[in-house]
Amino acid sequence: MPPLPQYKTIGILSRPRRTILAEVVPQLLNWLRERGVTTLIDAETACWLNRSELGKTRHQIAQQADLLLVLGGDGTLLAASREAAPHGIPILPINLGVLGFLTSFTLEELYPALEDALAGRAAMDERVLLLAERTHNGSILTEQRVLNEAVVHKGTLARMIELELHIDGGFVCRYRADGLIVATPTGSTAYSMSAGGPIVHPAVQSILITPICPHTLSDRPIVVADTSKIELRIAENSDSVFLTLDGQTGVPLQTGDRVRITRAAERLKLIHPPAKTYFEILHDKLKWGEA
Amino acid sequence: MPPLPQYKTIGILSRPRRTILAEVVPQLLNWLRERGVTTLIDAETACWLNRSELGKTRHQIAQQADLLLVLGGDGTLLAASREAAPHGIPILPINLGVLGFLTSFTLEELYPALEDALAGRAAMDERVLLLAERTHNGSILTEQRVLNEAVVHKGTLARMIELELHIDGGFVCRYRADGLIVATPTGSTAYSMSAGGPIVHPAVQSILITPICPHTLSDRPIVVADTSKIELRIAENSDSVFLTLDGQTGVPLQTGDRVRITRAAERLKLIHPPAKTYFEILHDKLKWGEA
Amino acid sequence: MPPLPQYKTIGILSRPRRTILAEVVPQLLNWLRERGVTTLIDAETACWLNRSELGKTRHQIAQQADLLLVLGGDGTLLAASREAAPHGIPILPINLGVLGFLTSFTLEELYPALEDALAGRAAMDERVLLLAERTHNGSILTEQRVLNEAVVHKGTLARMIELELHIDGGFVCRYRADGLIVATPTGSTAYSMSAGGPIVHPAVQSILITPICPHTLSDRPIVVADTSKIELRIAENSDSVFLTLDGQTGVPLQTGDRVRITRAAERLKLIHPPAKTYFEILHDKLKWGEA
Amino acid sequence: MPPLPQYKTIGILSRPRRTILAEVVPQLLNWLRERGVTTLIDAETACWLNRSELGKTRHQIAQQADLLLVLGGDGTLLAASREAAPHGIPILPINLGVLGFLTSFTLEELYPALEDALAGRAAMDERVLLLAERTHNGSILTEQRVLNEAVVHKGTLARMIELELHIDGGFVCRYRADGLIVATPTGSTAYSMSAGGPIVHPAVQSILITPICPHTLSDRPIVVADTSKIELRIAENSDSVFLTLDGQTGVPLQTGDRVRITRAAERLKLIHPPAKTYFEILHDKLKWGEA
Repeated sequence: MPPLPQYKTIGILSRPRRTILAEVVPQLLNWLRERGVTTLIDAETACWLNRSELGKTRHQIAQQADLLLVLGGDGTLLAASREAAPHGIPILPINLGVLGFLTSFTLEELYPALEDALAGRAAMDERVLLLAERTHNGSILTEQRVLNEAVVHKGTLARMIELELHIDGGFVCRYRADGLIVATPTGSTAYSMSAGGPIVHPAVQSILITPICPHTLSDRPIVVADTSKIELRIAENSDSVFLTLDGQTGVPLQTGDRVRITRAAERLKLIHPPAKTYFEILHDKLKWGEA
Repeated sequence: MPPLPQYKTIGILSRPRRTILAEVVPQLLNWLRERGVTTLIDAETACWLNRSELGKTRHQIAQQADLLLVLGGDGTLLAASREAAPHGIPILPINLGVLGFLTSFTLEELYPALEDALAGRAAMDERVLLLAERTHNGSILTEQRVLNEAVVHKGTLARMIELELHIDGGFVCRYRADGLIVATPTGSTAYSMSAGGPIVHPAVQSILITPICPHTLSDRPIVVADTSKIELRIAENSDSVFLTLDGQTGVPLQTGDRVRITRAAERLKLIHPPAKTYFEILHDKLKWGEA
Repeated sequence: MPPLPQYKTIGILSRPRRTILAEVVPQLLNWLRERGVTTLIDAETACWLNRSELGKTRHQIAQQADLLLVLGGDGTLLAASREAAPHGIPILPINLGVLGFLTSFTLEELYPALEDALAGRAAMDERVLLLAERTHNGSILTEQRVLNEAVVHKGTLARMIELELHIDGGFVCRYRADGLIVATPTGSTAYSMSAGGPIVHPAVQSILITPICPHTLSDRPIVVADTSKIELRIAENSDSVFLTLDGQTGVPLQTGDRVRITRAAERLKLIHPPAKTYFEILHDKLKWGEA
Repeated sequence: MPPLPQYKTIGILSRPRRTILAEVVPQLLNWLRERGVTTLIDAETACWLNRSELGKTRHQIAQQADLLLVLGGDGTLLAASREAAPHGIPILPINLGVLGFLTSFTLEELYPALEDALAGRAAMDERVLLLAERTHNGSILTEQRVLNEAVVHKGTLARMIELELHIDGGFVCRYRADGLIVATPTGSTAYSMSAGGPIVHPAVQSILITPICPHTLSDRPIVVADTSKIELRIAENSDSVFLTLDGQTGVPLQTGDRVRITRAAERLKLIHPPAKTYFEILHDKLKWGEA
């Protein structure tokens, strides 16, 4: 008798407009059913597969599943991580299309990866999340976890923004820039890297602060301990300022708003290919050592 | 008998909401009248001084004046340069407030600078302008001269843009970035510098192409001859793309739009303090040599 | 009766050619003697003050003293830190001349700082040191602690060096560059910053790896956990390669040499002005927020 | 009857230790003899081929030849360009080994390229050279032409150098850095690029000044007109300073030495593959557009 699978209920989140999913998902549902695994699929994917009756919200899936299988790119994975982390359930990411930094299994590796996961052999990382809170006069207006970064940035037609960085209650500096990125080590190879930030290994317990197009030439990226309480205060003469979290939402900020960023209590459990180290993945993505 | 003034009609363009102008402008009008100079003021300034009957459009002023006196910051000067250049009339810039890179006389230097200008003793630079044309299927939809730069950039909520750079009809490279700056040497110390571009002396006959937050690490600023015909083509999968000219307008671009940038036929005549070289001004602005 | 001083024996290390020391040191010796503190001075300073009989080696001083008072610049402090750390004795740094990043008391603050130290009121940081070992065929040829950085770099006439970075036994990448800097967070604001590295707060448990003039455009600074075992292997086709430790020694490396860098077992205890945070000191040194 | 060859005497300069030359050169000499071309080979190559009696100095070759055929890497080409330019003879560069930026024909393209050249069909660029002069109290001690760059830099064990940049007789700024690169547009893709400089198209009549590891964060690369007279003055407190020209010589500089850099009177004629534009070559070398 085969051993019981490590995960009894698996939620499947995907980027539904991909035609390849019409092939992959039905077969995958069968494969999992044969192994005694209950599956939950999100409403969009269900609808797109003409199985609307099976669809659930991402929130419901995260509450009921033991594991999230994510089929998509970095965007899909970032959204899934927000749901998975508070419930402590791991994510198994399968990358479709362009290689991202976060998703390291390919579609060909789907079934071997699942077999390893069900047999309890999956290699798993814990990634730090940040908690971004927008406050006004001391009340929290919105809060959200991010796996990559929180960005405060100018709107399309604004010339620049001006904001103050405070750490642990002390004033650090004032930025006149297109924006400011506050990133996890995971996010150091995403937007922060485009803005000139360093690569930070996920094991470094740190938060990375990278300005976007700073007007002051001496504004360098800063790496601080991940126990730091970071606060961004919008200066009064800023035109139009936005908060974007993991590249997916752009909330307009008002004068007097503050953005507080701290390490989230929960971490994200991320399954990755066993044979690859962090630097091997980086190598492939950055095409290091080729020129 | 004093010699005739070099300039018989002087147009005054200002940033009208500055309270200091209520003091400065009436006195300035008298001073010029005493010297036999006809003055023209823009509608906004006239209205704000309760002399609406005197107000003219910037366009009318540029057609009739021999010299434009600009009271304001870099923004006011950039707008004035668009009007002055096609008529070949020089600009005398007086800086109010924060020092910009372009405006090098202070308010204290207003009358000495005017006296030098009227006596034909003004030191004058010629600055290259770029002509930015937005085209679609070969028709020109908009065109505008810029003194600093044309920027094609992503909208507030977009993740990035993808565009192709063509020079003199040949494909150069494809950018995945927040945007691309095409700047004059004058503009090299403005937005391009924030994005990591070099300082280019105004005497170098060149156009500077600087990417904003490029996703490809090897994307460096490029300096090309100012006889180059530059064309930016928006890739189909770009979310929302804008064209901003001298920091003052943000026109949304459509799929299939192209932005052509070439050296404008006219140059801007810019009066500057006689004693200061380009590098002395740079020194003051960049606080060079202090650290 | 005044309380006993916290430190009974204080070693004084200085940069002896400074004329100001002829005034400062004799007075300082009296001041300490009056408070019942035994003082030890280094041979060079003693000789220069015509008190050769008092001089001791830096090594002897570090063995016998409870505290090292360092009068000089960053160079003097870096040398002192190598002696102090293995004995666990703190350093009180007094800066003479140009402000460095490490030495934050001025000469005017000498006596108040000493009074605070003797009364047990000194604010003290612990700074991580790295242990750099040069090995060949597995034998350790030299080893030294550094407070700022170990640098492997090309000799004067060489064109570039080629080296491999290994972390925890795994190959990371190959550099073709002028050199490679492996720095502590303390060293992040020294040479690494000139080479384009980020600012790393001393509380971040990390090691910073910054290439100098890399030929491959994608070579970014990397921040790794300070538990990492870093090894640099010199490629065979490198011309002339040197190892420089805290800017003070330049040892030629041979083909086959390896440089191993790990966190040292001991930390440096560094007394700093109580009122100033890390970011306030940074502010002053980098002239932040002025442009 | 075939037309007379465009070039009657061809000098061959090579990097003689390459084993492949033992195959290539004898065959090449025959091929040229059959076409009625006189050939001259340098002493080292001749010796290495056991034909010492044929060997001439590079200088003799440049005086007698109508064309220089250079077989080697960028180093060989840089040395050849110093000889060719004063005599106005073109260079046909064949790259052996790793692709450089300057040498764009491969060994497979040798005979087609020669045929085009002899038939007068070669595509030819003119590249600006700089003239670097080391002076002391007004006397010129050494002078040399460079195709890529002149570099003033610190010696192996020095901590940094301090130097003043003067342009056209006026003080520009003071650098505290590892060094300063003064480059042609051709050199913009060589060492200057490693130090963070922009790419400058050869048609831009300019000189590029790029600091190496500047201690002042605001020190940006500067592009000036190639009519500029550049002078570097070594500050007195600099430890050990060297002048390196096109990466091939390292002359120690003394206190009081000055290095003057101006555009050389002669240009280098460089034959390149007809089908490739500057940006296509750049593309291949920088691996643009792949990530």
